[in-house]
Amino acid sequence: MPVGGSVQIDLKSISGIRIGTSSAAICQTERDDLTIFELCDKTQVAAVFTKNKFCAAPVLLAKKYLIATSPKYLLINSGNANAGLGKLGVASAEKCCKGLADLVQITASRVLPFSTGVIGEPLPVNKILAALQSAVNGLDEKNWHKAANAIMTTDTCEKGYSRTVEIDGQCVTITGIAKGSGMIKPNMATMLSYIATDMPIANPTLQSMLKKAVDVSFNCITVDGDTSTNDAVILMATAAIDTKIICVEEDPRYAQLLVALTDVCQHLAKAIVRDGEGANKLIKVEVQQTSSTRDAKEIAYTVAHSPLVKTAFFASDPNWGRILAAVGRAKVTSMNVDNISIYLDEVCIVNSGMRATDYSEEKAQQVMNKEEITVRICMGEGSYDASIWTCDLSYDYVKINAEYRS
Amino acid sequence: MPVGGSVQIDLKSISGIRIGTSSAAICQTERDDLTIFELCDKTQVAAVFTKNKFCAAPVLLAKKYLIATSPKYLLINSGNANAGLGKLGVASAEKCCKGLADLVQITASRVLPFSTGVIGEPLPVNKILAALQSAVNGLDEKNWHKAANAIMTTDTCEKGYSRTVEIDGQCVTITGIAKGSGMIKPNMATMLSYIATDMPIANPTLQSMLKKAVDVSFNCITVDGDTSTNDAVILMATAAIDTKIICVEEDPRYAQLLVALTDVCQHLAKAIVRDGEGANKLIKVEVQQTSSTRDAKEIAYTVAHSPLVKTAFFASDPNWGRILAAVGRAKVTSMNVDNISIYLDEVCIVNSGMRATDYSEEKAQQVMNKEEITVRICMGEGSYDASIWTCDLSYDYVKINAEYRS
Repeated sequence: MPVGGSVQIDLKSISGIRIGTSSAAICQTERDDLTIFELCDKTQVAAVFTKNKFCAAPVLLAKKYLIATSPKYLLINSGNANAGLGKLGVASAEKCCKGLADLVQITASRVLPFSTGVIGEPLPVNKILAALQSAVNGLDEKNWHKAANAIMTTDTCEKGYSRTVEIDGQCVTITGIAKGSGMIKPNMATMLSYIATDMPIANPTLQSMLKKAVDVSFNCITVDGDTSTNDAVILMATAAIDTKIICVEEDPRYAQLLVALTDVCQHLAKAIVRDGEGANKLIKVEVQQTSSTRDAKEIAYTVAHSPLVKTAFFASDPNWGRILAAVGRAKVTSMNVDNISIYLDEVCIVNSGMRATDYSEEKAQQVMNKEEITVRICMGEGSYDASIWTCDLSYDYVKINAEYRS
Repeated sequence: MPVGGSVQIDLKSISGIRIGTSSAAICQTERDDLTIFELCDKTQVAAVFTKNKFCAAPVLLAKKYLIATSPKYLLINSGNANAGLGKLGVASAEKCCKGLADLVQITASRVLPFSTGVIGEPLPVNKILAALQSAVNGLDEKNWHKAANAIMTTDTCEKGYSRTVEIDGQCVTITGIAKGSGMIKPNMATMLSYIATDMPIANPTLQSMLKKAVDVSFNCITVDGDTSTNDAVILMATAAIDTKIICVEEDPRYAQLLVALTDVCQHLAKAIVRDGEGANKLIKVEVQQTSSTRDAKEIAYTVAHSPLVKTAFFASDPNWGRILAAVGRAKVTSMNVDNISIYLDEVCIVNSGMRATDYSEEKAQQVMNKEEITVRICMGEGSYDASIWTCDLSYDYVKINAEYRS
């Protein structure tokens, strides 16, 4: 059960996108594990992939195809990551793309492949090929929930978010789904997210918008500091709305849409942390007043990755010394400890680099007992800031990851 | 119980160093928690301190005193870190140094202070002052074991190592003690180590030697990636041996002594990892064939800090995908995944960037079942290498750190 409980979300269809799912029984289960997105011809596609150098075969192929052609289909399987297999992996991904392409009579390079699941096991290509027709037959604009379920691996709940925004008098919709419950699970790998809007946006403007939204959402979450071999976020713009296409960042509609897209991405990113392995708390680490965004992120990640800080949150222990010590070892250009203040929600725990003179263990404890907590760290160095989201480190995290293969 | 079990070590005295311990009852226990080192007048002292910017009051003061004068006494208390207290902390440390200085009739700046224990609680200065005389009365060259015990906090065993080396026909002794069972415990903080030799060495040659030895020992271990506010390693050279003083690194005796000192430091550093919080295994991560030492260390630390890798070791699970994925996200200048091989002891698990063709789960499992394991990662990029030592991540790590203050 994720932090905050499961929420059933109304996922709005995006005109121009049809989705089909089916079961290829990749992990010997009958649940749907194959998902196809069909994009209308005007659709522009932007993508952000894992920076892990051991990127999986589908990532290599999707990057190559994106450069060569405009995508018409996305083909996603869960249960097998098709990673760590060298040339065999690339050949398997190619076969799957070709299988779908032949079925719908397009060239294979217009199918982008995605995989998530066990690393190092050959992809069961024939099972996937056999399940394609059923997914194609089921293509429908209403199938976002089905897709959100079919892309899950060890997630305990589906993750989706939809919102509308009025831009220039027109109602624009953004809908996204995501999967992932650790930044990585090398056996049942990966964070994947698929987001679509009906607004017309040209490439590379769409790409810059996705990059900006990802930087303050999916790139600002951490469960255990690990990044996967298969991570990918895809943004599709179908141009179903009859309005002038957004071609430049200076278009005032760009900023409006970016705000809404960022909101969707942050909702999905936080949903992943809420469903983090063994997570009991959603923790926002907010670093303010640094001399660069890089410094703010470095401090935020140092605190968020500290096993000592994370176990203290698990124990609901307002152990300010651990937060202070983590800040102190962050690799930043300048730090004056006498300027630093730290807050748990609105309770000041450290002031001028030492325990706040009016520190109240009772008040700090009240904050620590909550399910959602903001740690705010004011550095007094400059005017930059950054926020990241993480969860606590619990017995269950060790249990899930120690017992995973047994 | 540390990995490999407790070992009773013969700690040889160093002529010119006398040690006394006593109980100041800092944590309401009767065990000794105060340690005094008295150094003969010719002794040279080198020191390496924490890089954590929130360094504790005794670290600030010891650094200042080291510049001003030549130390005659070290004064160490366990049970209270005297950290996170601002000016009050510095004043407390000054009072303790002055107390000992008055007793032995020297200036206060010739006493170097060290503290380890709870952060944020005022140092009980009067208790320490009251216990000084008893420690001074007990000063004796034979008290290394007593000191190794008195500096402990949550350590489950004392940590010491002694060795001799013949240099230019003379028998040189090096003896060291250490404490620490996580890289940091912000409540019961810190790694401390005190090492002495009877060889005559001039400053700053002694300082360069300590820096080199620490870089490949104490700076190459990690339990949880956290560094403390109070960490310190001290090297004392008493010049008790009647031979020409080592003044330059080019002196052939420098290299011989450095080898022996490195050996002592590595034994002490590994003893800390063996006693790591909840540790069941001692893991050496050896990275070879990189284009710089920095790259080798970056890869080694990325693997050693990965909670997924560490929980896999706890579960004795030869989960090569997790190691491979951790290597892939290390921030290095260049990486060609097709060149990478990974070994568990002598068993090849990854070859040319993918699971070894002759991979045997059974053989890998046999290695994983051992208490001491070497993970060797060959990058095929260059000729540099680095090794670091770490331990697994267990339920007990979470338990110890979650329940610490309750």
